[in-house]
Amino acid sequence: MTELRKDPVVGRWVIISIERAKRPHEFPSEPAPRREGVCPLCPGSERMTPPEILGYRPGGQPNDPNWTLRVVPNKFPALRIEGELGKAADGIYDRMHGIGAHEVIIESERHDVDLFDLPEKRVQDVLWAYRDRVLDLKNDHRFKSVLIFKNHGASAGASLTHSHSQLIALPVIPKRVMEEMNGCREYYRFRDRCLFCDIVVQEMEQKVRIVEETGEFLAFSPYAPRFPFETWIVPKRHQCAYEMIEGDQAKALAAVFRRTLRRLNLALENPPFNFIVHSAPFMERAADFFHWHIEIMPKLTKVAGFEWGSGFYINPTPPEESAKYLRELPE
Amino acid sequence: MTELRKDPVVGRWVIISIERAKRPHEFPSEPAPRREGVCPLCPGSERMTPPEILGYRPGGQPNDPNWTLRVVPNKFPALRIEGELGKAADGIYDRMHGIGAHEVIIESERHDVDLFDLPEKRVQDVLWAYRDRVLDLKNDHRFKSVLIFKNHGASAGASLTHSHSQLIALPVIPKRVMEEMNGCREYYRFRDRCLFCDIVVQEMEQKVRIVEETGEFLAFSPYAPRFPFETWIVPKRHQCAYEMIEGDQAKALAAVFRRTLRRLNLALENPPFNFIVHSAPFMERAADFFHWHIEIMPKLTKVAGFEWGSGFYINPTPPEESAKYLRELPE
Repeated sequence: MTELRKDPVVGRWVIISIERAKRPHEFPSEPAPRREGVCPLCPGSERMTPPEILGYRPGGQPNDPNWTLRVVPNKFPALRIEGELGKAADGIYDRMHGIGAHEVIIESERHDVDLFDLPEKRVQDVLWAYRDRVLDLKNDHRFKSVLIFKNHGASAGASLTHSHSQLIALPVIPKRVMEEMNGCREYYRFRDRCLFCDIVVQEMEQKVRIVEETGEFLAFSPYAPRFPFETWIVPKRHQCAYEMIEGDQAKALAAVFRRTLRRLNLALENPPFNFIVHSAPFMERAADFFHWHIEIMPKLTKVAGFEWGSGFYINPTPPEESAKYLRELPE
Repeated sequence: MTELRKDPVVGRWVIISIERAKRPHEFPSEPAPRREGVCPLCPGSERMTPPEILGYRPGGQPNDPNWTLRVVPNKFPALRIEGELGKAADGIYDRMHGIGAHEVIIESERHDVDLFDLPEKRVQDVLWAYRDRVLDLKNDHRFKSVLIFKNHGASAGASLTHSHSQLIALPVIPKRVMEEMNGCREYYRFRDRCLFCDIVVQEMEQKVRIVEETGEFLAFSPYAPRFPFETWIVPKRHQCAYEMIEGDQAKALAAVFRRTLRRLNLALENPPFNFIVHSAPFMERAADFFHWHIEIMPKLTKVAGFEWGSGFYINPTPPEESAKYLRELPE
């Protein structure tokens, strides 16, 4: 069982495990060596995961081993799907039950490939599965937002090597998402235009931070990146939420997303990275002012006391340099 | 030379190096092995650092080797002390020159001790040096806030083993600091009381999260900690800014701070950690509603895509458990 607790100072929510606490000796000082043995995400291991929520396969039954993509509940979920929210005060503090969905998108049946090694069509399947799941979870009115993300490499937080992404549906709008919404809303009130649409226009004019431009998408290094080689992919078409993506757009996104990840992988020699789909929360009237996008963050630098204390980041690589480097790589 | 750039979406500032960019091959995939050889922070190496700003020594001249504490400018500063701010627009983006101060507090002449190994009086010297430096930097009206922090251990961002802390003075109020100020201001408007004073009262009543209570200070696990064994030290006396600390208070803080760090070190077996002094920015009328404190964050878990995307944290250790564990350790 987990509990959601709110920090009273900055309003940050934290998911606290209350059924089985980690004791000091359970934290490894170094990352644990990869356990060899049976991979729970490989074909044939279907019984090692909870029953699947979604499967792409040429035919057959759910949980059969002939799939090419599978979505399953996380076996060790940060949040549980069953139950009521149980919002309550604890003196001056706020808490609620750890209700939510925590799913794993197994991107391929092959244990030895990364997302960006897959053919374009298979990357498109992954992007489409994200959309399928968000549309389904949107029907559960306890949830206010869904976060889709991938941790690649142990130092970016991945605990299994088999290529997968994750999805967490939350009963609250997270602070970071709310900050983005507020920033875009303020810009819209001031200028009557979408901030991300303006960013796309300026980047296409200045050209210095573009990694790749396609008919539907712009891949670029943002003006103020937190991390070296941080890269964003933004649709040129104004859309507030990821699940509004259409078939042709998913195809176009698969192409540019795959190429961008391949460029980063080549330039930085298989770096650990995270990517996060930033999308408008449910039930927010964000159609005019928000604009979904994907942020890819290679993890080459350490986040230390200064960053934690200030929210400032120190980045030794100007985005103009990283964009030029990525742009000029051979395909 | 560095440049400060503002992310237009959430208003986060980033320090970008523009004189010498890091190219991809310069990022080690694993932390570099400790370089043996001459330590630039040891006595005898005074010429390896820029001339000292402050030194505690029984007698003699600045930069003589008989010091017990030394403050020097960072040799590779994130920000430079000379020059004007040069605030400017770049289309829809904002930037300014990387003006600021970046100092290193060398906590001891001994290479082989950590801050918490020092006698109480010497810890008190370190705390007093922090105050001395903040009071001095406050006279430079380009600066709006100062951040004091320590990175301990390579995976918490330390690049030198000789025990030291750092100080960065900034020409803007960082986002994280502003969020805390806003949270405390709102609470004060609503209740007419200081949030941290209320937290101290509730923690002393509930007792379950207290690590140690002294006459002047409370060391406790916060209600919604981001990290396992995160521990805060808050003065019982209401004060908005760290530099208001008085002599007897610094003595009392040295005692509880040292013991708390020793407890964490014992419980978690020399964990990497960061601590950050949270203090009201300069020239803000924060006297009523803000309350300085120190946040200590052991780094046992990885920050991954979910945390980056949401600002949510997943913490496997309830603060009631970590506080009990730390409280019951033998001294």
